[in-house]
Amino acid sequence: MITPIDPMITPTIDLNADLGEGFGRWTLTDDEALLSVVTSANVACGFHAGDPSIMRRVCELAAERGVRIGAQVSYRDLAGFGRRSMDVPPGELADEVAYQIGALEVFARAAGSKVSYVKPHGALYNRTVHDADQAGAVVAGIRLAVGAGVGEGAEGAAARGTPAEGAAAGGAAAGGLPVLGLPGSLLLAAAAEAGLTPVPEAFADRAYTAAGTLVPRGEPGAVLLDPDAVVARAVLMAAEGSVTAADGSPVLVAARSLCLHGDTPGAAGLARRVREALSAAGVRVEAFA
Amino acid sequence: MITPIDPMITPTIDLNADLGEGFGRWTLTDDEALLSVVTSANVACGFHAGDPSIMRRVCELAAERGVRIGAQVSYRDLAGFGRRSMDVPPGELADEVAYQIGALEVFARAAGSKVSYVKPHGALYNRTVHDADQAGAVVAGIRLAVGAGVGEGAEGAAARGTPAEGAAAGGAAAGGLPVLGLPGSLLLAAAAEAGLTPVPEAFADRAYTAAGTLVPRGEPGAVLLDPDAVVARAVLMAAEGSVTAADGSPVLVAARSLCLHGDTPGAAGLARRVREALSAAGVRVEAFA
Amino acid sequence: MITPIDPMITPTIDLNADLGEGFGRWTLTDDEALLSVVTSANVACGFHAGDPSIMRRVCELAAERGVRIGAQVSYRDLAGFGRRSMDVPPGELADEVAYQIGALEVFARAAGSKVSYVKPHGALYNRTVHDADQAGAVVAGIRLAVGAGVGEGAEGAAARGTPAEGAAAGGAAAGGLPVLGLPGSLLLAAAAEAGLTPVPEAFADRAYTAAGTLVPRGEPGAVLLDPDAVVARAVLMAAEGSVTAADGSPVLVAARSLCLHGDTPGAAGLARRVREALSAAGVRVEAFA
Amino acid sequence: MITPIDPMITPTIDLNADLGEGFGRWTLTDDEALLSVVTSANVACGFHAGDPSIMRRVCELAAERGVRIGAQVSYRDLAGFGRRSMDVPPGELADEVAYQIGALEVFARAAGSKVSYVKPHGALYNRTVHDADQAGAVVAGIRLAVGAGVGEGAEGAAARGTPAEGAAAGGAAAGGLPVLGLPGSLLLAAAAEAGLTPVPEAFADRAYTAAGTLVPRGEPGAVLLDPDAVVARAVLMAAEGSVTAADGSPVLVAARSLCLHGDTPGAAGLARRVREALSAAGVRVEAFA
Repeated sequence: MITPIDPMITPTIDLNADLGEGFGRWTLTDDEALLSVVTSANVACGFHAGDPSIMRRVCELAAERGVRIGAQVSYRDLAGFGRRSMDVPPGELADEVAYQIGALEVFARAAGSKVSYVKPHGALYNRTVHDADQAGAVVAGIRLAVGAGVGEGAEGAAARGTPAEGAAAGGAAAGGLPVLGLPGSLLLAAAAEAGLTPVPEAFADRAYTAAGTLVPRGEPGAVLLDPDAVVARAVLMAAEGSVTAADGSPVLVAARSLCLHGDTPGAAGLARRVREALSAAGVRVEAFA
Repeated sequence: MITPIDPMITPTIDLNADLGEGFGRWTLTDDEALLSVVTSANVACGFHAGDPSIMRRVCELAAERGVRIGAQVSYRDLAGFGRRSMDVPPGELADEVAYQIGALEVFARAAGSKVSYVKPHGALYNRTVHDADQAGAVVAGIRLAVGAGVGEGAEGAAARGTPAEGAAAGGAAAGGLPVLGLPGSLLLAAAAEAGLTPVPEAFADRAYTAAGTLVPRGEPGAVLLDPDAVVARAVLMAAEGSVTAADGSPVLVAARSLCLHGDTPGAAGLARRVREALSAAGVRVEAFA
Repeated sequence: MITPIDPMITPTIDLNADLGEGFGRWTLTDDEALLSVVTSANVACGFHAGDPSIMRRVCELAAERGVRIGAQVSYRDLAGFGRRSMDVPPGELADEVAYQIGALEVFARAAGSKVSYVKPHGALYNRTVHDADQAGAVVAGIRLAVGAGVGEGAEGAAARGTPAEGAAAGGAAAGGLPVLGLPGSLLLAAAAEAGLTPVPEAFADRAYTAAGTLVPRGEPGAVLLDPDAVVARAVLMAAEGSVTAADGSPVLVAARSLCLHGDTPGAAGLARRVREALSAAGVRVEAFA
Repeated sequence: MITPIDPMITPTIDLNADLGEGFGRWTLTDDEALLSVVTSANVACGFHAGDPSIMRRVCELAAERGVRIGAQVSYRDLAGFGRRSMDVPPGELADEVAYQIGALEVFARAAGSKVSYVKPHGALYNRTVHDADQAGAVVAGIRLAVGAGVGEGAEGAAARGTPAEGAAAGGAAAGGLPVLGLPGSLLLAAAAEAGLTPVPEAFADRAYTAAGTLVPRGEPGAVLLDPDAVVARAVLMAAEGSVTAADGSPVLVAARSLCLHGDTPGAAGLARRVREALSAAGVRVEAFA
C-alpha cells in the first residue's frame, strides 16, 4: 500500500547527472546539452575523469545556468574510470576525497558558485553502500572539506570567523555539504550521523525489486531501454514517490533526486524528455542544495 | 657600491623550503625537522610530488608551528618530478595551477591556516623566469584561485560578500596571493602587473654573477657545498642585502626570503644553523605573508 | 620540374593511421573500420593513449588482417595526449621509448605478428624533426629494443643466437626496426645513420609549401577539408610522387607511406575512398615493413 | 615429524628480493648492494614503482652479476605502491600483467639476459593467494607473454619457428615462465595447471603458524626483528626445509626460494649475513630459473 502524497504539496524533484567525464583529448558526456536540463551537476574531479580545464568549463556553464555543482569524488583510477573497487585505507581515502573537493571548489567559486554537495562515483559509490569503513572515510573527507569552509556561502564564512574556529567547529555552522547517494546505503547513514544532510536518489532507468532495492546490473531487465518507460517511471517516482517493481508490485521510492545518465547515446534527449514530462505532470524540478 | 641598510630598521628575512615532496611509499624531505626551522613551507600539491595525506600532515604541522603554507605548483609530471619543461598551453596551465592551489587550500584551512602564497616548482620555476606566456599563465591560475577566495582570511571572505561578488572583484579585496620567485623573473613582473605581491628570494648555497644572476648549475662552483660558507652568505644576504659574486665583487641581492634546500642529506641541520646565525646577527626571521 | 615515375614500375604506397588511441573508458579511433583499410597501424603504447587491453585487441585485429603493427611512441603525457613538448633528458627518453616498444611487442607477438616499425607521436614527432638530441634519443631507444630482439622474426632470433650475442650485435642481424617520419627530419637522418631504415611519409590532407614542407597548422588552408581534394592528392602523391603546393607549383613528395587521420568524424570512410582511388589508379597499396 | 633431507643431496636455495622500487626522483631499494647478494631480482615494472631508466639499470647490473631477472608485476597503483587490492576485471588484469612483462623483457634482453620468472607484488601477491579469478588472470597474462616468446632463450625462439606457431603452441616449447609465490596459494596452483613451473618461497623474517601459514602482519610477533634469529631461520629453512612455528612446533616449509626484504634499513647487510650463513652451513645458493 502506497502512502498517498499530500495533494496540497507540490511534488519536487532534483535531476542530477555525471558531467565533465572527459580527460584531455577524450570526451564522454555532452556537458553543454545536459547542463540545460539537470539541476545538479556531478562534476568529475580528476581522479577517474575530469581535467582542470574541463572542470573549469563545466563550473562556468553550471554557474551561468543556475545548476548546482557537486563534487563527484572517486578512487584514483583513470585507467579503470573509477569502476574498480580499491582497498584504500580509510585515512588515505578521506584525504583523497578532501583533495578532490578542494580542487573543484576553486573552479566553482571562481565561477561565482560553490561546491554544494558530494556524490561518490562508480566503484566508490557502490562500495560505500555496504562498506562501513569506506563510507566513514568518504564522510570524514567531506567533513575535512567542510571544516575548510567548502559548502559555505560567504555568509557562512563570515559567521564562522577565523579559519581556526571554523575547523574547530567542524564546519557545523553552515550545515556542511549534503551527500547524494543510494537510499539505505551506509554512506547516507554515516553522513546523517556526522550531521551532513543525506540526499537519497532514484534511477528511472533501473528495475527495482519488491524490497525497493535495485535489480543488479547483469540480471535480465535490470536496465530499462525503452525511453517511454523511463519517462513514465520518472514521473511516477517524482509525483507519487513510487515505482512498479520487477514483480509488478508497487514500492515506495523516497528520492529527492533522480539520476540521469549522461554517457549514453541520446542521453541528453532522454533527459530533456524526462524534464518536460515532469513539468507537465506538475512536478517542480528544483535542486536540493 | 652597496647601499647601506638603515641601521634603525631591523633586517628581516623569511626562510622557505620545499616540503612534502614524497609520494605514497616514497619520502624525500625531512618535513618534521624543517618545519621547526623555516617560516614558509612550499608544499607540493600532487603534480610533481605530494599525495593528499602528505599534504594534510604537512599543513597540520605547519599550522601548529605558525609556518606559512605556500602552494608549490608544478607541471603534471610525477615521473620527472616536475623537472622537465613542458609546452603546456597557457589556458591549461592556468587551470592546472588553480587546481593545485585549491586542493592544498582544503588541507591548509582544515588545519586552521590557509594558502598564503604560491611558488612554482622546478622546471616551471625556471621557465617562468623568461617565458612570458607561461609566466602569465601561472599568474592567471593564481588569480583564478584568488577570485575563488584562496588567500583570504575569514575577514576577507566576510568583506568580500557573496562568492559571485568576490569573483567579479578578482579577489582584489584581500590583496590576493603573493608570488615567491626569482628577482628579475618575468613571473614576478607578471605578478606585480596583476596586482599580486611579488616576493623575491635568494639562494645562500648558489654562486652569483657580478650581474646578480645565478651561476647556472653545471658550471664549476655553481653550488656551494661548504656549510660554513652557506651560513655566512645567508647572514650577509639577510643583514646587508648583498652577496659576493663569483668574481669577488659585491652585488646587491634584494631578497625578502632565502630558499633552503630540503632534499639533501643534512639539509635540516644546515637550515637550523642558518637560522641560528641569522638570529645571532640580529636578523629577524619572519614570514613575508 | 617533376621527375617522371618509371611507367614500368608499379607505384606502391603504404597507408598508415594512428590506432588504439582510447584509454580505459574512452575511445577515439574507429580501430575496427580503419584496420580494414590501412596497411600499417601506429598503435598507441600507453604513454599518451592506449591501455593494455586496447593494445591487445588492436594487435589481434591487425594480425588477423595482415596489417603491420608499429609502435607509436610518445612522451609520458596522458593528460596532454602527448601533444605537449617535454624536455625529457635523452637517456630517460630513450628508455621510455624502449619500454613502450617492449610492451607492445608482447601483444604483437602473442597475436602471431611483431612490432614492425616505430613512429613517434604528436609533440615527440614534431620535436624530433629539428631537435637532434631528442631525435637521437628516440633512435637510441629503438636500437635498445632492436638489441633486445624486437623487430626480428623468429628466423632473426635463430640467426642471432643467444640474447647476449644479439645484444652485442646491436640487433644488426635482422636490419632492425624501420622508423616512420617526416621527410627531411632529423629523426629520419638519425635513424639512417644508426643503420635503421628511414621511411618518409606524406599527408594527403595537409597543404605543402613550394619547398616541400608542411604549411604549419593554424595558417589558413593548412588542413584540407574537402574529401575529394584529399583523395585526388593521395593519388597524385602515390602515383607521381608529387603534390601541388599552396602557391600552385608542383613539388616532389618522396613518400613511401601516406598518413591517414583516424580521429576525425568520417575518418574511416575517407580512408576507404583513398584506398579505392589508389587501386583504381593502378597504385599498389602495400606495407613498407 | 620432519622428513629428513637426504644427506647425499646438497640443499639448494634461491634468494630473491624486490628491486628497482624507486620512481623518478625517488629511491627505495639499495639495488646495487642487494644485487651482489641475491640470485633472483624481482624487478618493478612501472605499475607500482620502477621507471624505464631504473628498470634498464637494474637489468644491466643483474645481467652483469648473473642474477636472474623476474617481472614483479603489480596493480596499476603508483600512489598506493601496489598495496591496495583492486577489483580489476580478469581480462584487463591479464593484459596489464603481459604489458609489464613485455616492457621489462626489452631491458632484460638488451642487457643480454631475459625475464626468467614472474612474481606478483604487494596486494596482487596477497589477493592471488585466495582469489581464483585474479590468480587465473595473472597466469593468463603470463601465458600471453610466454606465447610472445618471453622466457625463451634464443634456442627456444629458434625451436619455436614463426611467432604465429609459438603463439599457437602457447609457448609450451620452452617451458614458459616459472611463477614465484606463496606455497599453497591459488596462484601457484593455477600456474601448475597451466603448465608453468610453480616456485614456492618462504620468509625468514616472518612467523609461521603450526599449519605452515604466515602469521598475519599486525599480529604480535608476526615479523622477526632480531637479525640473528632471521639468519638462523634462513639456514634452517634452506638446509632442513623446516621452521619453528610460533607455538614452538616444527613445521615443514617446502621453499625453493627465500624472500629477503630490500626496503628496510640495513636490508642489504642482513641479506649478506643470510647468504654467508647459508654458505657456511653447506647450502648451495642458486637461482631456480
